[in-house]
Amino acid sequence: MTMRSELHYLTIGQAGRLIKERKLSPVELTRVMLERVEKMGGTLQTYITLLRDEAMAQAKAAEAEIRRGNYRGPLHGIPIALKDNYDTKDVRTTAGSQLLRDHVPMEDSAVAARLKAAGAVLLGKLTLTEFACGGPDQTCGYPIPRNPWNLEHGAGGSSNGSAVAVSAGLCMGTMATCTRGSIRAPAMFCNVVGFKPTYGRVSRHGVIPLSWTLDHCGPITATVEDAAIMLRAVAGWDPADPTSSHAPAPDYAGELRTDIKGLKIGVPRHFFFPARPDVQREPLAIAEAALRKLEELGAHVEETRIPELEYSDAAALVILLGEGYAYHQWNLKAKPEGYGVVNRAEFRLASLFTMSDYVQAQRARNALKRGYAKALQRYDLIVSPTFAIVAPRYDAPPGMATTKMPSFTGPYNLAGLPAISVPAGFTAKGLPSGIQLAGRPFDETTVLRAAYTYEQATEWHKRRPPL
Amino acid sequence: MTMRSELHYLTIGQAGRLIKERKLSPVELTRVMLERVEKMGGTLQTYITLLRDEAMAQAKAAEAEIRRGNYRGPLHGIPIALKDNYDTKDVRTTAGSQLLRDHVPMEDSAVAARLKAAGAVLLGKLTLTEFACGGPDQTCGYPIPRNPWNLEHGAGGSSNGSAVAVSAGLCMGTMATCTRGSIRAPAMFCNVVGFKPTYGRVSRHGVIPLSWTLDHCGPITATVEDAAIMLRAVAGWDPADPTSSHAPAPDYAGELRTDIKGLKIGVPRHFFFPARPDVQREPLAIAEAALRKLEELGAHVEETRIPELEYSDAAALVILLGEGYAYHQWNLKAKPEGYGVVNRAEFRLASLFTMSDYVQAQRARNALKRGYAKALQRYDLIVSPTFAIVAPRYDAPPGMATTKMPSFTGPYNLAGLPAISVPAGFTAKGLPSGIQLAGRPFDETTVLRAAYTYEQATEWHKRRPPL
Repeated sequence: MTMRSELHYLTIGQAGRLIKERKLSPVELTRVMLERVEKMGGTLQTYITLLRDEAMAQAKAAEAEIRRGNYRGPLHGIPIALKDNYDTKDVRTTAGSQLLRDHVPMEDSAVAARLKAAGAVLLGKLTLTEFACGGPDQTCGYPIPRNPWNLEHGAGGSSNGSAVAVSAGLCMGTMATCTRGSIRAPAMFCNVVGFKPTYGRVSRHGVIPLSWTLDHCGPITATVEDAAIMLRAVAGWDPADPTSSHAPAPDYAGELRTDIKGLKIGVPRHFFFPARPDVQREPLAIAEAALRKLEELGAHVEETRIPELEYSDAAALVILLGEGYAYHQWNLKAKPEGYGVVNRAEFRLASLFTMSDYVQAQRARNALKRGYAKALQRYDLIVSPTFAIVAPRYDAPPGMATTKMPSFTGPYNLAGLPAISVPAGFTAKGLPSGIQLAGRPFDETTVLRAAYTYEQATEWHKRRPPL
Repeated sequence: MTMRSELHYLTIGQAGRLIKERKLSPVELTRVMLERVEKMGGTLQTYITLLRDEAMAQAKAAEAEIRRGNYRGPLHGIPIALKDNYDTKDVRTTAGSQLLRDHVPMEDSAVAARLKAAGAVLLGKLTLTEFACGGPDQTCGYPIPRNPWNLEHGAGGSSNGSAVAVSAGLCMGTMATCTRGSIRAPAMFCNVVGFKPTYGRVSRHGVIPLSWTLDHCGPITATVEDAAIMLRAVAGWDPADPTSSHAPAPDYAGELRTDIKGLKIGVPRHFFFPARPDVQREPLAIAEAALRKLEELGAHVEETRIPELEYSDAAALVILLGEGYAYHQWNLKAKPEGYGVVNRAEFRLASLFTMSDYVQAQRARNALKRGYAKALQRYDLIVSPTFAIVAPRYDAPPGMATTKMPSFTGPYNLAGLPAISVPAGFTAKGLPSGIQLAGRPFDETTVLRAAYTYEQATEWHKRRPPL
């Protein structure tokens, strides 16, 4: 039997099975999570808004409904949270911005509504960087979450509150957003799982946008199984999001199994394993070890080239900041003091981009898609380190344009392909690292299966921070 | 038995059935078509490049293959042509531009390759406006096709050569391209069928681009059945075009039938039937009569509103010229004399657009997609006149930005939805008009079925020009 003191470290899968068998009370579970948030929250700074009473009421309703025999599925009664750029009806949604400090949406985002329909309990809204753009910036007026693995470090951007909360047992899972790596990078920094599904897989209706051709919704969870469970609950077509896809969403968790025999993995080392002073050696070495492990598990690992990757950072920068600027330009002029100094500078840089810069960036992106399509005819997956560095200090200089290191996550936002980060080990100083597995459009199943196989064989996810 | 003198007015469907039954010789058919091109070509100015010997050789090969019992399908031995912006291996491909006067591609476009694989006979390459942009402009250095219904009139842009050739029996069908209406408008002007399928349905690999987020490939043919046959031959995923879709392409012609009972048709009159001096009354009255006919045939016709349509002209202008400028900017600076005066002026206008103008235009486009998605939850089809005016004079002033009349075709390039133009009657002066039927993404089948039902009931397509 699970000790009450450890309930917060149950996975969604474990808790769900116990709740289904009526061996675990959603009310008890929610109370334990809320107590832990009260205890740790001040140190970790994860919640912008905590919904104590609402969560307890939802947990009680879930418990009563389950007792009546109406079990909705694996999220029923599970305490989760949302990054604070998902609109939540009657609950303040700040997007980490001073401009939206008092913004209270009148309806739920599609994701919030679907989680609610699945019976999940919403504990609250999680810290993020301003408008989900760049790294943490103290001038934005919100606290900066600390990394539970080392409180002098942060969890990057933009879904830092989400990754910290899952890692420290302050919620069982979150839905976050990702424009260039905001799900996978913080997940890696905190030894949890971050999954950006295919562009179009999850409705973005009611999410405060950063760059709408790059923005994606996806889960941050403690395990691959949990990511599969959350994705299933929110995936699928939504007429309110014209970019959402009709592609059918399978039962991802039901299709998980530990078997990657014969799977073909391509590794574009020229891009993802560069010898550069701004890329750390440890995450690369950890990824090399993970590739050997994947081979041991039955996969064929081969070096390959996707030459178009060399343009991905430039293209992502122009598209991300360009679309962001187009959205923010009037507020930037009318209320510049409503922005953190770094975002203000980044968007002003973007004001100098020409239309042709932007169009050419989209053309480069199209070429990148073609490069990936070609590679994915030969390979089932492309594997790499998740990020070029492990978690930076919490007060490290933020910014996109000023961050010149290559983004290993950004190419999958450009190409719209499903990409997951799973824990893959620790540096000498005890900071987590991860590997990224990416697959074909709408083939989340293969990505999840490979990640699951690796996770179950290595069990890095079982290490929890010393808190 | 069909008279030799009328072979050129067989449809693809008719000719294909005769060829399959070995009652018609592809060699004889091709010879008749080439003779007619020789006879009429000087008046109508449809072919930039005529492939006499190559076509005869292909026809002989097709005939021999069919005689050996290897019948490939409904395009085997059928003389067709291509708009001259489809790359054809070893055959000059000008895109109607002086800059490409001597451009000879080293490989086939995807469409050319698929038509070849289907056994079609390529008669030659057809006139278009410069880079498929705007209306005919005499300063571009290529002849301007005349409308076979009235030689003082033209066939608009940009696929004017294609529509004229099909209408006058100078080829049995063509593949054309459409960025804002270039397939449907010329088709209407010539009393033939023009079909722009869903964005992603047909590979654009090897097509000289105008505006890659708006460009589509589609057939111009004498009948709806012929459009279905040609689309089937070229539709489907192509790894070389990252925007092409995996959606399966059904046997469109096999699914045709005359039945629209219970089909729900929405008519956004506020946009498609405006009272404006630059919109002619006759095409609108003809479309109203067609709507009554569709009702008679069993459809439910209802007025509806898609408010986002009001932004479509501005969005299409900025995106079309903006992407075109990004592609042409270096040539415009280095070789301005390589462009017609109107395109030069249009692209220079586009050089003044800002990145935010472009991004906002794409956002307006996204809103339009959402508006259509909502309407198409309620309606199976949206029906309208195809164009605001009938065929203009061949020497009418060209240009996009200077053409202020609303585009009824452009919204479907923005939204990426399948839209067909079918003949619907004639003005008092004897110029053809048409209606446009548009449907849900990748639901070409419903669009074709409704168009076919209307066509078979009205038989406007049976009228041939007085040549």
